[in-house]
Amino acid sequence: MAAPPRLRAAVAGATGYIGIQCVEMLARHPHVELVRLLARTHAGRRFSEVVPGSRVDLQLDPGLDVDGVDLVLAALPHTVAASHARGWMASGAVVVDMSADFRLRDARTWSQWYRLDHPDPELCASAVYALPELPGSSLTDASLLAIPGCYPTAALLACVPALSAGLVEPDLVVDAKSGVSGSGRSPTMGVHFAEVNESVHAYGVDGHRHKAEMLQELRLVAGGEVQLTFVPHLVPMTRGILATAYLRPRPGVTASDIEAAYAEFCDGHPCLRLDPQPPATKSVTATNVAALHAGWQDGRAVITCAIDNLVKGAGGQGLQALNLRFGYPETAGLQLEASWP
Amino acid sequence: MAAPPRLRAAVAGATGYIGIQCVEMLARHPHVELVRLLARTHAGRRFSEVVPGSRVDLQLDPGLDVDGVDLVLAALPHTVAASHARGWMASGAVVVDMSADFRLRDARTWSQWYRLDHPDPELCASAVYALPELPGSSLTDASLLAIPGCYPTAALLACVPALSAGLVEPDLVVDAKSGVSGSGRSPTMGVHFAEVNESVHAYGVDGHRHKAEMLQELRLVAGGEVQLTFVPHLVPMTRGILATAYLRPRPGVTASDIEAAYAEFCDGHPCLRLDPQPPATKSVTATNVAALHAGWQDGRAVITCAIDNLVKGAGGQGLQALNLRFGYPETAGLQLEASWP
Amino acid sequence: MAAPPRLRAAVAGATGYIGIQCVEMLARHPHVELVRLLARTHAGRRFSEVVPGSRVDLQLDPGLDVDGVDLVLAALPHTVAASHARGWMASGAVVVDMSADFRLRDARTWSQWYRLDHPDPELCASAVYALPELPGSSLTDASLLAIPGCYPTAALLACVPALSAGLVEPDLVVDAKSGVSGSGRSPTMGVHFAEVNESVHAYGVDGHRHKAEMLQELRLVAGGEVQLTFVPHLVPMTRGILATAYLRPRPGVTASDIEAAYAEFCDGHPCLRLDPQPPATKSVTATNVAALHAGWQDGRAVITCAIDNLVKGAGGQGLQALNLRFGYPETAGLQLEASWP
Amino acid sequence: MAAPPRLRAAVAGATGYIGIQCVEMLARHPHVELVRLLARTHAGRRFSEVVPGSRVDLQLDPGLDVDGVDLVLAALPHTVAASHARGWMASGAVVVDMSADFRLRDARTWSQWYRLDHPDPELCASAVYALPELPGSSLTDASLLAIPGCYPTAALLACVPALSAGLVEPDLVVDAKSGVSGSGRSPTMGVHFAEVNESVHAYGVDGHRHKAEMLQELRLVAGGEVQLTFVPHLVPMTRGILATAYLRPRPGVTASDIEAAYAEFCDGHPCLRLDPQPPATKSVTATNVAALHAGWQDGRAVITCAIDNLVKGAGGQGLQALNLRFGYPETAGLQLEASWP
Repeated sequence: MAAPPRLRAAVAGATGYIGIQCVEMLARHPHVELVRLLARTHAGRRFSEVVPGSRVDLQLDPGLDVDGVDLVLAALPHTVAASHARGWMASGAVVVDMSADFRLRDARTWSQWYRLDHPDPELCASAVYALPELPGSSLTDASLLAIPGCYPTAALLACVPALSAGLVEPDLVVDAKSGVSGSGRSPTMGVHFAEVNESVHAYGVDGHRHKAEMLQELRLVAGGEVQLTFVPHLVPMTRGILATAYLRPRPGVTASDIEAAYAEFCDGHPCLRLDPQPPATKSVTATNVAALHAGWQDGRAVITCAIDNLVKGAGGQGLQALNLRFGYPETAGLQLEASWP
Repeated sequence: MAAPPRLRAAVAGATGYIGIQCVEMLARHPHVELVRLLARTHAGRRFSEVVPGSRVDLQLDPGLDVDGVDLVLAALPHTVAASHARGWMASGAVVVDMSADFRLRDARTWSQWYRLDHPDPELCASAVYALPELPGSSLTDASLLAIPGCYPTAALLACVPALSAGLVEPDLVVDAKSGVSGSGRSPTMGVHFAEVNESVHAYGVDGHRHKAEMLQELRLVAGGEVQLTFVPHLVPMTRGILATAYLRPRPGVTASDIEAAYAEFCDGHPCLRLDPQPPATKSVTATNVAALHAGWQDGRAVITCAIDNLVKGAGGQGLQALNLRFGYPETAGLQLEASWP
Repeated sequence: MAAPPRLRAAVAGATGYIGIQCVEMLARHPHVELVRLLARTHAGRRFSEVVPGSRVDLQLDPGLDVDGVDLVLAALPHTVAASHARGWMASGAVVVDMSADFRLRDARTWSQWYRLDHPDPELCASAVYALPELPGSSLTDASLLAIPGCYPTAALLACVPALSAGLVEPDLVVDAKSGVSGSGRSPTMGVHFAEVNESVHAYGVDGHRHKAEMLQELRLVAGGEVQLTFVPHLVPMTRGILATAYLRPRPGVTASDIEAAYAEFCDGHPCLRLDPQPPATKSVTATNVAALHAGWQDGRAVITCAIDNLVKGAGGQGLQALNLRFGYPETAGLQLEASWP
Repeated sequence: MAAPPRLRAAVAGATGYIGIQCVEMLARHPHVELVRLLARTHAGRRFSEVVPGSRVDLQLDPGLDVDGVDLVLAALPHTVAASHARGWMASGAVVVDMSADFRLRDARTWSQWYRLDHPDPELCASAVYALPELPGSSLTDASLLAIPGCYPTAALLACVPALSAGLVEPDLVVDAKSGVSGSGRSPTMGVHFAEVNESVHAYGVDGHRHKAEMLQELRLVAGGEVQLTFVPHLVPMTRGILATAYLRPRPGVTASDIEAAYAEFCDGHPCLRLDPQPPATKSVTATNVAALHAGWQDGRAVITCAIDNLVKGAGGQGLQALNLRFGYPETAGLQLEASWP
């Protein structure tokens, strides 16, 4: 399908951290015109009044109905996008959803993990899981794109190259470290500066919700059952996720085999970078890059993957997905270079 | 042996982070009199002049010879304590060494990991690895106490309860996160605020030196061969280590078995705390406590252990060891409550 | 008055940051027995369950009535202590109030600044402003001690030595920088880690409430009218306040005169420390010390004062005040040495 | 003068923080071709190898001689640019110097502040102080542009609007707060994470070197003598400077007069932003914007100015200056929107 000269886009949930990221990037996107911002909080005010440092001057609209747009980017709480996606699509819009609502193909699995009834279970099967670097990913015909969570993006990119090449046992350990913005913008005790600073802790030890989509995609890639232990940690920084994956190589597999698999995987993907040493999250801050390192210690592969949780882990991946959906250059409107320090 | 009314103590390497920690704690210890501070850097100045916020007014002496002390706490670079320990002991002092010089019983193993000749290989076998909570640890007759590294303290306390009870396979993954003070006080690019802040990264992926002592002690505990994958990470905080251990339970072992083993292990140890949720490092800052949590995820045990790297991971453990060596209450001079936030 | 062997103390508002600080310090105070903790939030649970790292095992009681205690330390929102102080005093307790309720002698002034009716205006005049280092401060007969705010403590200690000696014009500029815990433990957007980290900003530019008590005390000290410009700033750290005071010396006053005045002022006060260079807040973290530096730049005195906002700026000053009230050593139960780094 | 189609540019001192910032911005500048990177450290390696997250693949050259370039951006230690500027200019290049070497018109004043002989005193008078928003600033004919320091940029933009309008007394107090990257990339104890984090302190109380250029420019603007008290503080953040200026209005001047002066001053300057509340430094991170707020407290004007010290305070201002010098749009290649959070 040929892309229209400039897509008219709406962002729903525009004043959360992921929404803000989407708005700022779309405002600079060469092929998109930002026409509507939806946000219950602050409705009636201008975006630049409520987001420090922004120059986007659109007014924030209450409600979630859109009309006359080609594209809705949704950064909303659980079930809200699921309740509106059908309507948005009926009005002719492609939907890029940043929530978990459409990431699981099976609505019953979704209900088990999220302990809610899914508002539109039939839509789930038609959504496309939009991690463009996954083998076989194709977004060109999708009307409903489910953008992966930040943790799954980092964990999958760390594990899939070895797993899809059949080099490692399907029994994976992923230890992830996230900055605080991954918890969203709502103030809670868990994001209070004084509670978080100068501290690190694990959470979700018995099973974080993001594990569901990781298992779904890992099993597809492995073509069979996969065991995964995934433990997230909160780190005193604003942005960034580092996933450290511990993979047991199959008999006979060497460190060089692993390295070669990651080099091959990264090749041709403009948003992947293979580093000669373990990447620091700061080296990808504000970029849509996932930086990978393939290491080895005494017979176990140790893979690290660093992303900016709000860019490659959310809004940036949304833009990358819409670029692919509409035939634009994959990195249009995206930044690939970090600003050090 | 009966303890003298007040031990006369010297600290060698008094102005590094571990040395400072030792000095401040010894100055408040009810059974110790601090009589000598050795520090090449700043020699001739008073301790309180070079350590902000200190009220310890002793002069810093150059050189490393001591006489007439009952106790030397050494916080020195590799090989320096090893070159002086024999002399200190000959003069009648008990030596509490915070470096890695005497942690490995076998000097040849030491040389392989540290790529240096050991200055006094014969002494290695007579040193006692001073992690008091290790099963069978006995410090009462020791003249040379090798205080474990900060990473090994956290990693061993996370793994040993399950391993020593025979509940898990001897194939361990430990992912550790450390604050920056673990790198010492010397300014390098790797500890520059602007390089470290707002970032997290792995290092030593192919094998950190502290792994040697971990393997030595884990094998003793397991009574056989042990595989360990240990990967340290640098986190933007000053103090604290969190070790997350991923342990594969033996067939038939349940989550309750694991929990019970950790509860039993912690029982009776005043410096261990078993938490109902994964501990934050801030909850042990400035204390000699190791906080543990025994979790479980889909058939794998997930153990977290939080310590203050400069206290339970260094100087505090040194005091705990000397308390046990001289028959004082185990926690004399040590703080057990954190100051929140 | 002779102190009872051990004071029975209650803390009201025990689970806010100031309350926690009071509880932890009182639990270690040699002359106090902590008998009641009052906290609406978490009522029914044990203190150690809701404050990470604590070993204080008392139950949290709802309500604010106390009986049979010698001492109430109150760390409550505006007007709550003012509504209960009369009752607490009637039951025989000395009240140490950490809120602003009794800091202003004139209830009408209080109402202007806090835009509320004062619940017990008559009590205001009988309260004692408890900054022990103020010239003429006497706490021995007080039944109601109003502990200064954190900003006023730092600002007054920076200005009073020069002002009370008549060395500077009564036209003061104080620029203050505070850590985030000064905003309290309630989660708001203003303390969200991601909003606060990697940023500094001014607030209250048109007049922070703490200015009222500063003016009250400065005028007393100066014996006349005083102009003060006070601007607070939020800094990405948990604890600490640094006040930088810009003072215009009277004609003929030299840098040495200023230095001498600060040296004389600090002399004999165990919680004051005069530093040869501008103090870092970290050098007083967790201590009850106010560190001062008296500098000079081209004819203007530049005074810096660093405190821990939760200790010398709140709970620690409360203990210092009760020590003086009951005739204990001024620093009983207080820490004076920082733990570097 | 007509600009060439694409300027050929060299960056000298390319691997320090200011140099890195210049390289990354020039690499994206629409009218510049980056052709040479000079850096003694790391000479022979590629820029992207030594700067994490960069995609600039040029090799780092030793030495400081350039030929065939239209433009040299110099980010070098004191005196190095001063020793080479004449040669660079002789070869036909316009020199944009980020150091202090050419900021003072009078080389003797320079020598007094920097305690060094100036390598090329005669050049000083011909350099142009390149703060484009200063009244009367004209860069179109300059061959040697001295980019202001980060502190002077923030302090001058805070003071000049009121001072140049004659609204305030020429007796100014500026309290500045800076992130750590302002100290440069060389590792020293003063930038060690563990020393800096969770702390704030003043320095240079008796007179920071940047004061010299502030006085020079303030006196030009005021048309007479100016008194300035300037005190910098180190804040635990990577980037950002906040200057808080305390200005005494002349008799009869009102808060509205002050506000109007700042509004008028900002009008038409694309890199200035006048905020309705005091700006947070995070709201300008990575942008070339100086955000201002004009406040008032009991008869004193309180002005805050927030910049990114490496962008508007260094490299970004360098690009802005070269844009004006060569007739490009003032903000070509510069980012004006921050990425929140």
